[in-house]
Amino acid sequence: MKNHFVQSISPGDTIDDEFALVEKTMLQKRDGNQYLNIILADRTGQIKGVVWDNVRTIAGAVEAGDFVHVTGSVSEYRGTPQLVVRTMTAVAPDKVQAEDFLPATDLDVDQLHERLVKLTETFTTPWLRHLFEAFWQDQAFVTAFKKAPAAKLMHHAYLGGLLVHCLSMAVLADKIAVHYNGLDRDLLIAGAILHDIGKLREFDYSAAIDYSDEGRLLSHIVIGLEMVDEKLRQIVDVPRDQANQLKHMIVSHHGEPAFGALEPPKTIEALVLHYIDDLDSKINAVRDFMAKEDPSQNWTSYHRILGRHFYRGNQKDILPKADG
Amino acid sequence: MKNHFVQSISPGDTIDDEFALVEKTMLQKRDGNQYLNIILADRTGQIKGVVWDNVRTIAGAVEAGDFVHVTGSVSEYRGTPQLVVRTMTAVAPDKVQAEDFLPATDLDVDQLHERLVKLTETFTTPWLRHLFEAFWQDQAFVTAFKKAPAAKLMHHAYLGGLLVHCLSMAVLADKIAVHYNGLDRDLLIAGAILHDIGKLREFDYSAAIDYSDEGRLLSHIVIGLEMVDEKLRQIVDVPRDQANQLKHMIVSHHGEPAFGALEPPKTIEALVLHYIDDLDSKINAVRDFMAKEDPSQNWTSYHRILGRHFYRGNQKDILPKADG
Amino acid sequence: MKNHFVQSISPGDTIDDEFALVEKTMLQKRDGNQYLNIILADRTGQIKGVVWDNVRTIAGAVEAGDFVHVTGSVSEYRGTPQLVVRTMTAVAPDKVQAEDFLPATDLDVDQLHERLVKLTETFTTPWLRHLFEAFWQDQAFVTAFKKAPAAKLMHHAYLGGLLVHCLSMAVLADKIAVHYNGLDRDLLIAGAILHDIGKLREFDYSAAIDYSDEGRLLSHIVIGLEMVDEKLRQIVDVPRDQANQLKHMIVSHHGEPAFGALEPPKTIEALVLHYIDDLDSKINAVRDFMAKEDPSQNWTSYHRILGRHFYRGNQKDILPKADG
Amino acid sequence: MKNHFVQSISPGDTIDDEFALVEKTMLQKRDGNQYLNIILADRTGQIKGVVWDNVRTIAGAVEAGDFVHVTGSVSEYRGTPQLVVRTMTAVAPDKVQAEDFLPATDLDVDQLHERLVKLTETFTTPWLRHLFEAFWQDQAFVTAFKKAPAAKLMHHAYLGGLLVHCLSMAVLADKIAVHYNGLDRDLLIAGAILHDIGKLREFDYSAAIDYSDEGRLLSHIVIGLEMVDEKLRQIVDVPRDQANQLKHMIVSHHGEPAFGALEPPKTIEALVLHYIDDLDSKINAVRDFMAKEDPSQNWTSYHRILGRHFYRGNQKDILPKADG
Amino acid sequence: MKNHFVQSISPGDTIDDEFALVEKTMLQKRDGNQYLNIILADRTGQIKGVVWDNVRTIAGAVEAGDFVHVTGSVSEYRGTPQLVVRTMTAVAPDKVQAEDFLPATDLDVDQLHERLVKLTETFTTPWLRHLFEAFWQDQAFVTAFKKAPAAKLMHHAYLGGLLVHCLSMAVLADKIAVHYNGLDRDLLIAGAILHDIGKLREFDYSAAIDYSDEGRLLSHIVIGLEMVDEKLRQIVDVPRDQANQLKHMIVSHHGEPAFGALEPPKTIEALVLHYIDDLDSKINAVRDFMAKEDPSQNWTSYHRILGRHFYRGNQKDILPKADG
Amino acid sequence: MKNHFVQSISPGDTIDDEFALVEKTMLQKRDGNQYLNIILADRTGQIKGVVWDNVRTIAGAVEAGDFVHVTGSVSEYRGTPQLVVRTMTAVAPDKVQAEDFLPATDLDVDQLHERLVKLTETFTTPWLRHLFEAFWQDQAFVTAFKKAPAAKLMHHAYLGGLLVHCLSMAVLADKIAVHYNGLDRDLLIAGAILHDIGKLREFDYSAAIDYSDEGRLLSHIVIGLEMVDEKLRQIVDVPRDQANQLKHMIVSHHGEPAFGALEPPKTIEALVLHYIDDLDSKINAVRDFMAKEDPSQNWTSYHRILGRHFYRGNQKDILPKADG
Repeated sequence: MKNHFVQSISPGDTIDDEFALVEKTMLQKRDGNQYLNIILADRTGQIKGVVWDNVRTIAGAVEAGDFVHVTGSVSEYRGTPQLVVRTMTAVAPDKVQAEDFLPATDLDVDQLHERLVKLTETFTTPWLRHLFEAFWQDQAFVTAFKKAPAAKLMHHAYLGGLLVHCLSMAVLADKIAVHYNGLDRDLLIAGAILHDIGKLREFDYSAAIDYSDEGRLLSHIVIGLEMVDEKLRQIVDVPRDQANQLKHMIVSHHGEPAFGALEPPKTIEALVLHYIDDLDSKINAVRDFMAKEDPSQNWTSYHRILGRHFYRGNQKDILPKADG
Repeated sequence: MKNHFVQSISPGDTIDDEFALVEKTMLQKRDGNQYLNIILADRTGQIKGVVWDNVRTIAGAVEAGDFVHVTGSVSEYRGTPQLVVRTMTAVAPDKVQAEDFLPATDLDVDQLHERLVKLTETFTTPWLRHLFEAFWQDQAFVTAFKKAPAAKLMHHAYLGGLLVHCLSMAVLADKIAVHYNGLDRDLLIAGAILHDIGKLREFDYSAAIDYSDEGRLLSHIVIGLEMVDEKLRQIVDVPRDQANQLKHMIVSHHGEPAFGALEPPKTIEALVLHYIDDLDSKINAVRDFMAKEDPSQNWTSYHRILGRHFYRGNQKDILPKADG
Repeated sequence: MKNHFVQSISPGDTIDDEFALVEKTMLQKRDGNQYLNIILADRTGQIKGVVWDNVRTIAGAVEAGDFVHVTGSVSEYRGTPQLVVRTMTAVAPDKVQAEDFLPATDLDVDQLHERLVKLTETFTTPWLRHLFEAFWQDQAFVTAFKKAPAAKLMHHAYLGGLLVHCLSMAVLADKIAVHYNGLDRDLLIAGAILHDIGKLREFDYSAAIDYSDEGRLLSHIVIGLEMVDEKLRQIVDVPRDQANQLKHMIVSHHGEPAFGALEPPKTIEALVLHYIDDLDSKINAVRDFMAKEDPSQNWTSYHRILGRHFYRGNQKDILPKADG
Repeated sequence: MKNHFVQSISPGDTIDDEFALVEKTMLQKRDGNQYLNIILADRTGQIKGVVWDNVRTIAGAVEAGDFVHVTGSVSEYRGTPQLVVRTMTAVAPDKVQAEDFLPATDLDVDQLHERLVKLTETFTTPWLRHLFEAFWQDQAFVTAFKKAPAAKLMHHAYLGGLLVHCLSMAVLADKIAVHYNGLDRDLLIAGAILHDIGKLREFDYSAAIDYSDEGRLLSHIVIGLEMVDEKLRQIVDVPRDQANQLKHMIVSHHGEPAFGALEPPKTIEALVLHYIDDLDSKINAVRDFMAKEDPSQNWTSYHRILGRHFYRGNQKDILPKADG
Repeated sequence: MKNHFVQSISPGDTIDDEFALVEKTMLQKRDGNQYLNIILADRTGQIKGVVWDNVRTIAGAVEAGDFVHVTGSVSEYRGTPQLVVRTMTAVAPDKVQAEDFLPATDLDVDQLHERLVKLTETFTTPWLRHLFEAFWQDQAFVTAFKKAPAAKLMHHAYLGGLLVHCLSMAVLADKIAVHYNGLDRDLLIAGAILHDIGKLREFDYSAAIDYSDEGRLLSHIVIGLEMVDEKLRQIVDVPRDQANQLKHMIVSHHGEPAFGALEPPKTIEALVLHYIDDLDSKINAVRDFMAKEDPSQNWTSYHRILGRHFYRGNQKDILPKADG
Repeated sequence: MKNHFVQSISPGDTIDDEFALVEKTMLQKRDGNQYLNIILADRTGQIKGVVWDNVRTIAGAVEAGDFVHVTGSVSEYRGTPQLVVRTMTAVAPDKVQAEDFLPATDLDVDQLHERLVKLTETFTTPWLRHLFEAFWQDQAFVTAFKKAPAAKLMHHAYLGGLLVHCLSMAVLADKIAVHYNGLDRDLLIAGAILHDIGKLREFDYSAAIDYSDEGRLLSHIVIGLEMVDEKLRQIVDVPRDQANQLKHMIVSHHGEPAFGALEPPKTIEALVLHYIDDLDSKINAVRDFMAKEDPSQNWTSYHRILGRHFYRGNQKDILPKADG
């Protein structure tokens, strides 16, 4: 069990605790001896560490991505705390509390998923019903879908975040399909659920949220298209034109090429999807950011990516609980 | 009454009809005599014309912005039809059918406006209720608000378009205020109704939709702030901080400085407003564009401003009627 | 057989000739009667036409994309020649000379293709050899690959252009794999051949070069990935990591997101591929452009997309024949 | 009186001195006890501090924006000095030397202001004379105008800086109105004086220069327009068109939308104003920057915002004293 | 002598007049016979022409850049007038009125130049005095300097325009050198006179204003540096550091790399020069544009490059006569 | 001889070693006494230092740019090591091992240069042969050319780097001149060798690689043009048009104005040169970056300028040795 979280570690502390091992780099001292630089993490942050003794034994027993049990002490190096490791051994994933290492939604992901299933059962378009039946019957997919984050940093950057994001968008899509006439409701909701589905493999989120090799080389857009294609091959009588429209929503949901859209949205449904994705992502990015800041202040600190301070104003109670 | 609309005028036609006089420029021939170049319009387009005879009399009797009765014939100049004017006299605005000259919404603007009034009567924030009472009791304002277009070209570019746009956004805002917790519903709906209010004076739409002098010099954002300020001065006990948040929604609704936002959205409500403005404007711009194109084709022609062809797909029936 | 090419058609000409029918739009006159606007093309350009009589019969007998035999006469409308059609009937594709309608490379595409096959037979990487065997054994693929253009307008915009471009790049890749140490030659050449392979379906080039529905919705990058994936499923023992590197070359070959790269090049081979693609495309775009201009002038006219005049200088003889 | 300035505080120092309290944030330790993070400032910089004891009493007695008397000692935290506060009490503003906390111009602001008044008395345009009479008779305005800075960081970032900037621009405007024929001198000078007037409220500069709530939500452009509007309402016979031209100068003085101009300059006077604002701001930004650097070096260090090193060359004597 | 100016030529006219021959392109008809496409110009514009008969004789007797005497008649081709040439012969430059072909300043260029000479005689920096003595004693240089335009289209686009621009800037520079302390007056004025000096060779302005080969390949910045270098080689004791500062003003006067500055301005003088160049160019571009428009209208037409309409307002009298 | 390299200096170390003195700034303490801030460097990095005693003597004996012998001890200031200097004296350049202070290529620069000379001897264009004879006979030029780096940070940022880069490009140019028909081989190779020649003076690389005054004011493009011009003046019968094409390659090799091209490439040779410069620079920048990173990791750390992580993949052996 975790005693010390990274956020509260200070120089002088003695450490006897579990962490996720994020990085491990073997280096050589000027005298020819090897040492090991490491990065450890839990859900509150990351800390650097160094192993001076028993280097080969320790290095041989753990891999980046493992959970590890570490003993040692905390010194200071170039102004930040550094963990001087005495022992480090791998810990089986089922021996740790996953939620100590990765932040997760407070919501019941089974319930959230059930709401999505219900929504897809209302579809009147046969091939889209069959497509989602194929997804929901794929247990490995469903398990991953309930766990995946929607981002590494910006919004819904926690376990279950992708599901929270997709459900919120699907509910919004349902409302907007009523608001504007002429929209294909089933297609729009299907796009809302599947537009980011490639994030199941774009990220690695076993011990910490980071990009996978595949994610960095191909992006969640390409991976998502592959995942949809794989399921489409299991269904008969898929209208090719409509399938292309669904894929187009994945291809175009970032809106502009400069932001990663291979094509700009060219159908009404793709346009709507882009805007509600932008809306839901940004609202949640800002609410997550506000939630970390001192609630007694009118203004947040400066948000580097969005380039501004945010004004809390009357927002007294902006818990990122389930919307809609 | 109109017989010939501009769209259908061809070289060789004889003209005896009403138009809006858009521009009038006095020029001089090489022999020293003056002639008049004019631009005439109706709701189907614009045509150039020239007056060779009785120039001073005709020029003295009409002004740009007038409705005029014109007789003459159509020749061709540098590849396009040109109207050679024999007579041109002013026509009183109440003698023409306004809808022949400016496109207008098919919807009942009184009903649309009534829906907005009802919505503001549900507000629980006193100063916002008083603010809208002040607006709704201002008959000149209400008359203009029912008539103003939302744009010259891009979206809702017809009489009543601003009201259609604001109502659609207000209804959307109401839905989204329920979808996300922590939003100030009254403030968000107020912003949806007032964010473009400066367009009442940014545009001149008596005989044709064009920018007013004030509109070109100050923009609808500055004009809208002045209009809100004027009403706020009539109300007591306006909380200064909340009034600034309302003004901030007008200041920031274009999202980024490069698109005309003096400040980026810094409150949750201003963020939401920006996205639903973008959503409603673009959806309607695309639907208006599709409505003008051959419905039997899968693809529209190239949309120069949005930079793409649009795919009609299943959109068989996308009349821009009242949404929501 | 073609007598009149579009480029040389003038008002007053009588027409009795074959064209590609590019567009067909049914419209209605003010008197309620229908007429047909059409666009006809051959390899020298496009001309607009109109059908006033027998509209339904003619419209029912031809489709956009057909070759048609047309009789009629040429008038002038708004400053450009317009074909007034008397009769128009479909012509079977095997009855026309394809090269009258679409520009094509002068080179022997079978020979070019044979050179590519030979190059892939030198590969020492088993799965890449198998991948290309799968492509080369797919007759439909090979036929299309020998015919596809590389672009609609910019470079290699003629039948066989894609093959010319890929061969030139593959030969360059081979030279550069020797120039820089540490490059994976097989992977680089494979990327050179396959990076644009999606253009086989992105374009429609039966009667004229234009984008296909699929091409506009998904882009050649996504289509190309699907084509590679389909072949990879037929091969055993594909190393997943290397396959992702090959796909990454397709994903990243445009270099930057703003130019359509979902990810920027992240391997040395992807970097090299991007630069030689840019080099070969631009060199050929400029040479194709120069070839259309008066060879006695030092400067070309202004190239709108590249934004400059080009200086011919010593380039007396820049026929775009096979390079390398 | 100040003994220690922030710039010279080092770990190990004992502090018994006055500061401006910039920020105050109450936080909670893991043991449940509260502590206080603070930021203190004087004209030489800012330093972080922490209060561990008597937290509630101290926190209740001071507010951000107060001048405070602090005793304590200096330690080091994560590589930078940190003040561990023992006592902190508010000090009345009239008990401190304002110039210890905020940098101020060396010039006599009464004299500078008198020069501006004289300049506006030469106006021959009645409504502009009346407008400035209204401003000069508003004592609260004049007091603030003599004190306001022109920026937080970039140029004229000191008390009185706005007045120095406006006077320099007004004098330049006067010269340029003579240089180019056809300029409206009174309008141009009026714009030079009023273009940044909203900075009186955009900034808060009682104890330190920072943005006000209103400034962040509305920007100095909107605030300036409100201030001019308020004065215009007190004058009779203001020609609406000319007033709009004056407001247009405020609206457009940043030149381009991306830099905060709601409209680009559309009159000759607005164009000139934009260029002399850019000239005066940048010249002073560079001179202020040079003045802080070692005068014996040919090159300044790298200026992050302007993106370059500056070359001192012959500039031996570039004191930012009154120009013109 | 000119009878017909291009601006007033209409289909049906008979032509017997002088023009500048701008372009000459030999083409081939389908029957194998050659014909000649030409472009003719005078100061009011350009007109296309064609030669069907005596093609070789005529083509052999004239070159692009010649003045020519043309007889023929005016027809219409694709909606614009086209001159069908019967005869065309070269005319010696001294037989035409240069001002019929190229617009020129109304001012006395000798007087303008004399003012510049006087200004440089006030310099107290020896090497700068010697530099200008070298320029002023170079008769070919002075002759060209009095004739060169400052641009092809945008501002001061007429003979003598460069001199008008440089004098205006030099006078402004003199005023600003007094306004801001610490400026090197001689260096600043020298930069004002020489910053665009490469335009003497960047443009060809014998019969019409166009870019020279050298101008298109090297730009006026590189040519100007060569011209200054050539004169510097004739002077002894040039302080290398100061000469580099002068060259830096030429290198950086466009302000930003994207606008053609190889380096951004890094000295105070280079900064000032950039701003007064921008100011003088834009003011004159707008005044030249206004001068061509109907003076009775409040707004100009849309200026494509500057992206806006301009408001005339009180500008009743904006003749581009000598400023300062 | 060096004992301690900067990279391995830690707080507590005693120093008695040689460094390059990069910067020296005299400052004043609050008590009126002076002290000296310095920056020392060797090929492994930079370290800050301070001199408290004998300040005037020490400051008078050394200059920035000198090699110095330093004794003292290492403390820590604001989280980074700082050298407290006891003594510092100048060391003659011939007494130090240059390679301790500046990284240098491992290759034999005489051999590399010889390959370039051989290549230019194959030229068939007389004036280009003469041009290179003039360069190769200039001993000072050849010495500098063998020593200059190609950049301060990005690629080939070591002594000899410019020569390595130019040779690689010249060899590539030779191959590409064969690959595409119609290229002027001599001109292309000449451009490859000379395009960056101004870097000989743009950088100062006696004790550390930094920009020279001239480099910052004029850029390597302008300096390179001056160097070519100087040699061209020594040759008779240089065809002006071809010389301008060579200069154009220097002017345009950065491709776009925003990246420092005064004109975009307008000849085929200039286009090719731009692409192979981009190719060779980027490949080497990435390989140099990879070479500094842990070879056991699949991904490099984040490259700030290129904005991505790089994937090592199969690149096991990417020593930046001579290519081609």
